[in-house]
Amino acid sequence: MKMTMKKAPMGWNSYDYYDTTVNEEQVKANADYMAEHLKDCGWEYVVVDIQWYAKDAGSMRDQYQYIPFGDMEMDEHGRYQPAVNRFPSSAGGKGFGPLADYVHSLGLKFGIHIMRGIPRLAAHRQLPLPGTSLTAAQAADPASICGWNTDMYGVQDNEAGRIYYDSLIQMYADWGVDFIKCDDICDSWMYRHEGFSGWHETRMLHQAIEKCGRDIVLSLSPGPAHIDRAWQYEKYANMWRITDDYWDRWDLLLNMFERCELWQNHVADGCYPDCDMLPLGRLGKGFGQERETHFTREEQKTMMTLWCIFGSPLMIGAELTKLDEWTQWLLTRKEILKLTEGGYAGRQVERDSRRAVWSCFNEETGERYLALFNLSDEEQVLSCDCHQVEQFAGRKAPAARELWTGEEVSAEAGLLSASVPAHGAKLFLLENLQKEG
Amino acid sequence: MKMTMKKAPMGWNSYDYYDTTVNEEQVKANADYMAEHLKDCGWEYVVVDIQWYAKDAGSMRDQYQYIPFGDMEMDEHGRYQPAVNRFPSSAGGKGFGPLADYVHSLGLKFGIHIMRGIPRLAAHRQLPLPGTSLTAAQAADPASICGWNTDMYGVQDNEAGRIYYDSLIQMYADWGVDFIKCDDICDSWMYRHEGFSGWHETRMLHQAIEKCGRDIVLSLSPGPAHIDRAWQYEKYANMWRITDDYWDRWDLLLNMFERCELWQNHVADGCYPDCDMLPLGRLGKGFGQERETHFTREEQKTMMTLWCIFGSPLMIGAELTKLDEWTQWLLTRKEILKLTEGGYAGRQVERDSRRAVWSCFNEETGERYLALFNLSDEEQVLSCDCHQVEQFAGRKAPAARELWTGEEVSAEAGLLSASVPAHGAKLFLLENLQKEG
Amino acid sequence: MKMTMKKAPMGWNSYDYYDTTVNEEQVKANADYMAEHLKDCGWEYVVVDIQWYAKDAGSMRDQYQYIPFGDMEMDEHGRYQPAVNRFPSSAGGKGFGPLADYVHSLGLKFGIHIMRGIPRLAAHRQLPLPGTSLTAAQAADPASICGWNTDMYGVQDNEAGRIYYDSLIQMYADWGVDFIKCDDICDSWMYRHEGFSGWHETRMLHQAIEKCGRDIVLSLSPGPAHIDRAWQYEKYANMWRITDDYWDRWDLLLNMFERCELWQNHVADGCYPDCDMLPLGRLGKGFGQERETHFTREEQKTMMTLWCIFGSPLMIGAELTKLDEWTQWLLTRKEILKLTEGGYAGRQVERDSRRAVWSCFNEETGERYLALFNLSDEEQVLSCDCHQVEQFAGRKAPAARELWTGEEVSAEAGLLSASVPAHGAKLFLLENLQKEG
Amino acid sequence: MKMTMKKAPMGWNSYDYYDTTVNEEQVKANADYMAEHLKDCGWEYVVVDIQWYAKDAGSMRDQYQYIPFGDMEMDEHGRYQPAVNRFPSSAGGKGFGPLADYVHSLGLKFGIHIMRGIPRLAAHRQLPLPGTSLTAAQAADPASICGWNTDMYGVQDNEAGRIYYDSLIQMYADWGVDFIKCDDICDSWMYRHEGFSGWHETRMLHQAIEKCGRDIVLSLSPGPAHIDRAWQYEKYANMWRITDDYWDRWDLLLNMFERCELWQNHVADGCYPDCDMLPLGRLGKGFGQERETHFTREEQKTMMTLWCIFGSPLMIGAELTKLDEWTQWLLTRKEILKLTEGGYAGRQVERDSRRAVWSCFNEETGERYLALFNLSDEEQVLSCDCHQVEQFAGRKAPAARELWTGEEVSAEAGLLSASVPAHGAKLFLLENLQKEG
Repeated sequence: MKMTMKKAPMGWNSYDYYDTTVNEEQVKANADYMAEHLKDCGWEYVVVDIQWYAKDAGSMRDQYQYIPFGDMEMDEHGRYQPAVNRFPSSAGGKGFGPLADYVHSLGLKFGIHIMRGIPRLAAHRQLPLPGTSLTAAQAADPASICGWNTDMYGVQDNEAGRIYYDSLIQMYADWGVDFIKCDDICDSWMYRHEGFSGWHETRMLHQAIEKCGRDIVLSLSPGPAHIDRAWQYEKYANMWRITDDYWDRWDLLLNMFERCELWQNHVADGCYPDCDMLPLGRLGKGFGQERETHFTREEQKTMMTLWCIFGSPLMIGAELTKLDEWTQWLLTRKEILKLTEGGYAGRQVERDSRRAVWSCFNEETGERYLALFNLSDEEQVLSCDCHQVEQFAGRKAPAARELWTGEEVSAEAGLLSASVPAHGAKLFLLENLQKEG
Repeated sequence: MKMTMKKAPMGWNSYDYYDTTVNEEQVKANADYMAEHLKDCGWEYVVVDIQWYAKDAGSMRDQYQYIPFGDMEMDEHGRYQPAVNRFPSSAGGKGFGPLADYVHSLGLKFGIHIMRGIPRLAAHRQLPLPGTSLTAAQAADPASICGWNTDMYGVQDNEAGRIYYDSLIQMYADWGVDFIKCDDICDSWMYRHEGFSGWHETRMLHQAIEKCGRDIVLSLSPGPAHIDRAWQYEKYANMWRITDDYWDRWDLLLNMFERCELWQNHVADGCYPDCDMLPLGRLGKGFGQERETHFTREEQKTMMTLWCIFGSPLMIGAELTKLDEWTQWLLTRKEILKLTEGGYAGRQVERDSRRAVWSCFNEETGERYLALFNLSDEEQVLSCDCHQVEQFAGRKAPAARELWTGEEVSAEAGLLSASVPAHGAKLFLLENLQKEG
Repeated sequence: MKMTMKKAPMGWNSYDYYDTTVNEEQVKANADYMAEHLKDCGWEYVVVDIQWYAKDAGSMRDQYQYIPFGDMEMDEHGRYQPAVNRFPSSAGGKGFGPLADYVHSLGLKFGIHIMRGIPRLAAHRQLPLPGTSLTAAQAADPASICGWNTDMYGVQDNEAGRIYYDSLIQMYADWGVDFIKCDDICDSWMYRHEGFSGWHETRMLHQAIEKCGRDIVLSLSPGPAHIDRAWQYEKYANMWRITDDYWDRWDLLLNMFERCELWQNHVADGCYPDCDMLPLGRLGKGFGQERETHFTREEQKTMMTLWCIFGSPLMIGAELTKLDEWTQWLLTRKEILKLTEGGYAGRQVERDSRRAVWSCFNEETGERYLALFNLSDEEQVLSCDCHQVEQFAGRKAPAARELWTGEEVSAEAGLLSASVPAHGAKLFLLENLQKEG
Repeated sequence: MKMTMKKAPMGWNSYDYYDTTVNEEQVKANADYMAEHLKDCGWEYVVVDIQWYAKDAGSMRDQYQYIPFGDMEMDEHGRYQPAVNRFPSSAGGKGFGPLADYVHSLGLKFGIHIMRGIPRLAAHRQLPLPGTSLTAAQAADPASICGWNTDMYGVQDNEAGRIYYDSLIQMYADWGVDFIKCDDICDSWMYRHEGFSGWHETRMLHQAIEKCGRDIVLSLSPGPAHIDRAWQYEKYANMWRITDDYWDRWDLLLNMFERCELWQNHVADGCYPDCDMLPLGRLGKGFGQERETHFTREEQKTMMTLWCIFGSPLMIGAELTKLDEWTQWLLTRKEILKLTEGGYAGRQVERDSRRAVWSCFNEETGERYLALFNLSDEEQVLSCDCHQVEQFAGRKAPAARELWTGEEVSAEAGLLSASVPAHGAKLFLLENLQKEG
């Protein structure tokens, strides 16, 4: 049965800062920081992103993000291994076991990125799969490739494919992996010409996880995930990206309102539509351009407010060891982070080109929230008639507290009103709710 | 706040037998039958379908289903009224009030079909809207028409439009209408060239219903509804057709498995994706071809099983006064109809070209069901390993009872197996469930 | 048989300056100017654009371009007539006869704009068609409307429809109309939900023109025309818009390179893919914003060069009576306008995001042209190796003359090279061509 | 400059009978037959179809048409060579030279099939390209593969790619190849997710052919070719498939009328939209099912008539050595085959679900033809009013001769009428044409 946790995963991911190049020391440093400064707010996953098996990762960065026909660490069964030059503790076939142990020792969880499929080289070399006479060539689907990374062939829905995926996930479980971000598996629209092998590969991964004896979160990338496949993601996965790669640009943040609108009724225990990582703080070193986030502080609050009231997983993109005070403050607002926990149902009240309003309701606690987003380029007064909000039906709230500032506001006759800066957001907890009539 | 009933609506609709031609006497006869023979199984809505305002409905049936520029009953504000020649009790401006009263007197509920929009003639005649100096011409959107029926223009999202819809729904509420099936509002793909006015018209209808002081079910047609608008249907409506017009053809029934797969996670209290009416028994008189359903008995059981385990509304298409014994038996299986009540979550376990398996689980009662569908053209033995069914996790069932036949079967080691006729279905209630381990 | 003229139509159209509001006096003034200053360069058509039948055209311009349910001049058979308040000579049922006579008297040709279809009011009023007992209601297709103008219903492919269109075109022929720009008939993608009635209406218009006893150019709007219907446009029409409404914006001009690429092999005698009117000089009065064209002079040369080398019809959008010296110079370059005549086949040699190269070859005269377009925002040196140009095969040109400047350049070893300003163009006539080898 | 022949290519292709398995002896036998029995009717190309470089072609036919990771003959530069076990004369690096010589000695021309791209194995092995230090890995685009055959990677638009293609085509030219059917290059809709590399590969092949010093026909597959790329096919290729693989099924033949309608104006000297091979006579041996064509004789005449009046290339799919008398007669009607020569412009006059009418006109000779196709399943009388045919304008034909039967018919008052069997066709040459009036 699929792992069904009660809150959306929160953690750190190496991609936004390191691209393909992160190494063991850097992962540990970020884990250390998280354990010390962020853990008690719910941050727990430490995720090593793409191409940890590539010895030459980043060495031709002016030409390629992913070097074609590059130099990869691989075991005799065609399973990628951490590049020893980057992850020394993996020497001697230990894989990510030692690093996972380290992360666990801090009270945190360990995650890795994988590409859907089986290495092309494993297939061309006809490498033997474990415990069988079948080979990688028989598991590989030579017509199923990734459009933007040349490492893999897709895996066939056959005996050889099942053996490959089972052995792969078992190896990860043995290492102590708690979280798998599988890439090239979620956006099938890149692969329209045929039955997309990613659909059955998602199921095969899920079934392998069920068998492996360890709780492992399954996260699917890239997006945008397709709403007509929602039932499949919900059946087999824990997170799925509802957007293409997200970065610190206002147009992308603005666009996320459309995506959250679309997916708003799909957040549930163990099921988290994923708005992608938070490009905050220090970013971009591996891309050749270390820099601060381009988001203004107002935009950052808008992003955090939307991700939380929607219920997205939260994965920090910043290099944690360089976290400034502001960003750390932003990432440790417990009253706001709480919304990503089970029981908080966020819904869009209304949206047009200049503003969005979201409400959130916890049936158990009776808590009711309202978020006002200013999508325009000028400061404006936004208001919401609470009688129009389905989730507030039959309740009146004489007052509300804004959770970023702590400011108390009155909500006379159900009308909540506030001046909101350009691209900014306000998030209210409604107080003293009383049944009307 | 949207009406949130606890079970999917069940009832009778005049379309499949009468097309556009049903009259008062016929509606009453069907209501009488329902009250006497079906009510205690949950059947309650009596719905008058399309063009009850057309005096000449059906008179040119060889050329048109809907006569262009036809002769319609309309009040001085441009609101259609029942054609008095067909619904005599509506004379003197009483509308459907007397007929609704009659239906209510039987302990049943009364529903009507409407077309999205405002009559074209009302706009061209510049008829005044009630209690305002605005006219129908100002409410009408002359660029928004129906692709297959010439009665209406769409309604604009403006003051005049709001007044029109509010006054229309208030009139229906005053009549005693309990159910509105609004047509030409759900399948926007017919109208790609512009912002489809049906989206805001859905909201306007919902808001008018909220204000009218009566509980009214809002049902949207035709389909297929668009999965990317699911959040909107869920917010504003109670039912939405997930299919184009459905009739008694195996290819359409087969296709419904695909649609139910797509919408399986969208059934909730007050929210019912709609598989359309049940073309059973005596059909087609108004279409010029009175006849028995073309479905075999096995296909009928397949249809009833799928509609129920999925959680669709159930609307009988048959002429009730001519119901044969078999069909009546089929429509009164309380143990099966029960699945459309709140709390029963149906999910597809698997599907390929030859078979489908669905499970159903009631969290409160702990009841677990399994349906095996034979989609092929030959009898075959179907089986399901209950350990693979997510909804059965951690439970073993030594036995099961088939609900159409009452037959008891054993489920040794979790394997449920049965021979199923071509196009047929078996529906099992799992018994004596025990926690494993 | 379709009219097959030997050169693309050239003329003036009232839309870009007057919108819906042009009147008789204004048309005459523009015709006078054309006869005096432009006629000897090939300019000959004077075209009255949209809604010449609307008495109230332009009177609610802040709300509507086309007033819904507006006040139209119509004869007893449902055929629109010129609004007498705007075209006084049409009084007494003379239609555009007197105005056409005037234009003809200047040695020019007269054209009008029409909307596809039959007036909605004619159908709702059941007006009789000429010489038959059939009515407009029987000719009208109530499901076929225009998405942006509320005047018309589409016309059915039946006897009533044929009578309507035949009588309409005969009336135009009797008036002396030489050119019909039929709108709402070319871009079927606005109407995807059904068999688009515009396809048969195009054929019906063509057949009516064949019968009317007068040579009439048939021009189809709006665009973009669909390349998969090219064979139909070529069979029934003389011009078809390959673009949506074109205005004086660089992005639209840039985009035209893509459209000309697509349609380059479709220019032939009597067949002219149409790049739309030339928004030059004084524009926009009827739109409430009289102004000069936004195009720079370089962009204007680029536009003229592309339209001519591609072979588009040329219709001036400027108010002619206010033509400045520069624009008049631009519009009277006979050596360049010549390229729109029969026999000059323009072809794209290559195109990327920064530049485009076109060649042109006249098989009869042996003339060869080369155009260099700078699509970038900075001046750059563009060059073309004439050996790569299919149309120059086997010929070498030691020299070339630039036709906008008269400047002579050498083309050593077949390489033609020139510095071209941002958004600008150079057009070369290759000289002294010799067979190679 | 592109080869611009005056008639559509006619010949034989090994695919329909041999699939991937044809060998030298079989090619020669078919060439011998063509030289003796068909050559004088214009048949001249002998084309070896797919995977002539695969030593194991056909050996796993129950599982694969194209064996993944199969055993291919390749030279040291990564260029496929004929499999010596199948083409013994190619031993010693002679390639197809000896076989081409043989075919030429019979007065015929020699063609081969190739897959777009460079062998995947050549890239993974980093094989050196001729005369450069660049390797196959640098020419290969690892993200561009074929959806249905695993042999190749696409070729990049770079120096390495150019060298590879130039050297490949030069090798073919040296062998004496007259015709290249390049596969996986025409239907880009299988590859929507990115810039399709086949567009620039088409240009690179064209440019390589221009440089190679030999006239080589370039034929593109598979289809359907995209009408919005017509200008590109016309610029760089001689033939392009307007259909997916065509076989002897009525639905496919019926569908070809739609495709010919679409492409009717695109036939010109050197440019031939291609209806694919003629599945006549003996077929299917390599597919494991040797058999006669499934087409009735009427359907065969319909196919031949359509291909000829449209102007398609003609490639026989039958095993020639087993040609029966009827099929040989069908393929040797000189009066009909003549229509594929330059100067005969075929046009669709009209088409509906039950019939199609085509006309054909040779401007130079004045010959006019009319074809009547019965698309229905019953015999029917078809007729055409010759006054409606654009190509016959101003001419009347008192008589006509049917070219399959020789039968003379009168065409009183311009009306040509004939009874045509189900799925059959009649093709008339109009006689004694006189100018009307």
